[in-house]
Amino acid sequence: MAHIKLPEGVPGIRGPMLISPETTKPLRELVEVLLRGPNSLSPAEREMIATYVSSQNDCYYCQHSHGAAAAEHLGGNYGLIDELKQNYQAAPISEKLKALLAIAGEVQKGGKQVTAENIKEARKRGATDKEIHDTVLIAAAFCMFNRYVDGLATWQPRDPEVYREIGQRITNHGYTATGWERPVQVAKEASRE
Amino acid sequence: MAHIKLPEGVPGIRGPMLISPETTKPLRELVEVLLRGPNSLSPAEREMIATYVSSQNDCYYCQHSHGAAAAEHLGGNYGLIDELKQNYQAAPISEKLKALLAIAGEVQKGGKQVTAENIKEARKRGATDKEIHDTVLIAAAFCMFNRYVDGLATWQPRDPEVYREIGQRITNHGYTATGWERPVQVAKEASRE
Repeated sequence: MAHIKLPEGVPGIRGPMLISPETTKPLRELVEVLLRGPNSLSPAEREMIATYVSSQNDCYYCQHSHGAAAAEHLGGNYGLIDELKQNYQAAPISEKLKALLAIAGEVQKGGKQVTAENIKEARKRGATDKEIHDTVLIAAAFCMFNRYVDGLATWQPRDPEVYREIGQRITNHGYTATGWERPVQVAKEASRE
Repeated sequence: MAHIKLPEGVPGIRGPMLISPETTKPLRELVEVLLRGPNSLSPAEREMIATYVSSQNDCYYCQHSHGAAAAEHLGGNYGLIDELKQNYQAAPISEKLKALLAIAGEVQKGGKQVTAENIKEARKRGATDKEIHDTVLIAAAFCMFNRYVDGLATWQPRDPEVYREIGQRITNHGYTATGWERPVQVAKEASRE
């Protein structure tokens, strides 16, 4: 049960977001520009960074929602996302993305954990200052989103179909558009089973 | 030296914010509504929650900027902010704020650290669901801001006058208004000493 009264059958962050529209607006705009705005890192790469950080923070809802978004961006490659979370160093992704994931992993532990060596390695693998900036901010932002979702003990269904719907919703329409009825409906049905 | 190229002599979060206007807009709107929007918690109380979390995350810039904002809201009571950071249980603040700071402290460690007992205690001390929600989100947001500031190794001056200027700027004009020239000028002068 959630720590505060939230709308029933609404999964993860969508519960608190519904009761706090004034903070939801900038939160949605932030995640839209961070993960889907014009950028030399693809939306899939940015969703992978978000997924990895959420996985390190052990946030079920965020790692599966953004993992599904990343997988859907990659034509449904859910296997790659599992590999990434288990051991990204061995996953078939670019060396640049591995170096950025290393930075994200340090940010997850704490801002001061990022070393000059981490930055040097990322630059060596072709990362720009802007990409390093965005990686740090994505990782930092998911340290917020994960804490928002888990700090209120929101309902986080375990049915993979819920997350597939969310992933498709994100890749097709983004974070700021309305129309989350379908994933929420699937979640509600799952909650009744 | 910062991990990436940032404008010289611009302190803390203001450096990366200047190079990334597209993410700065929602970040500023978020902090404005969280810490200064209409709320049953006063701006001073919300700045104290932000200060405490930033102190637990050992972020020099954030704890001194928001600590100064809280102190300025309280007529310049900087001593109270020092007490709060050292041991808020012994500080002359309300029992409700103490219970909310306990929740914020757990969120700082990780979302799952918040217990039903923490929530029960906050309710017993008069906190509403909305105040608990806002406390969790403020604490979560400062886990982001602190990581953004430290994860890029931004310049964080040690001159208290810089933070007093920032605190007055925040309490008088808020986070979304332009016109940060004066605090930045003071910081630049401090950087030359």
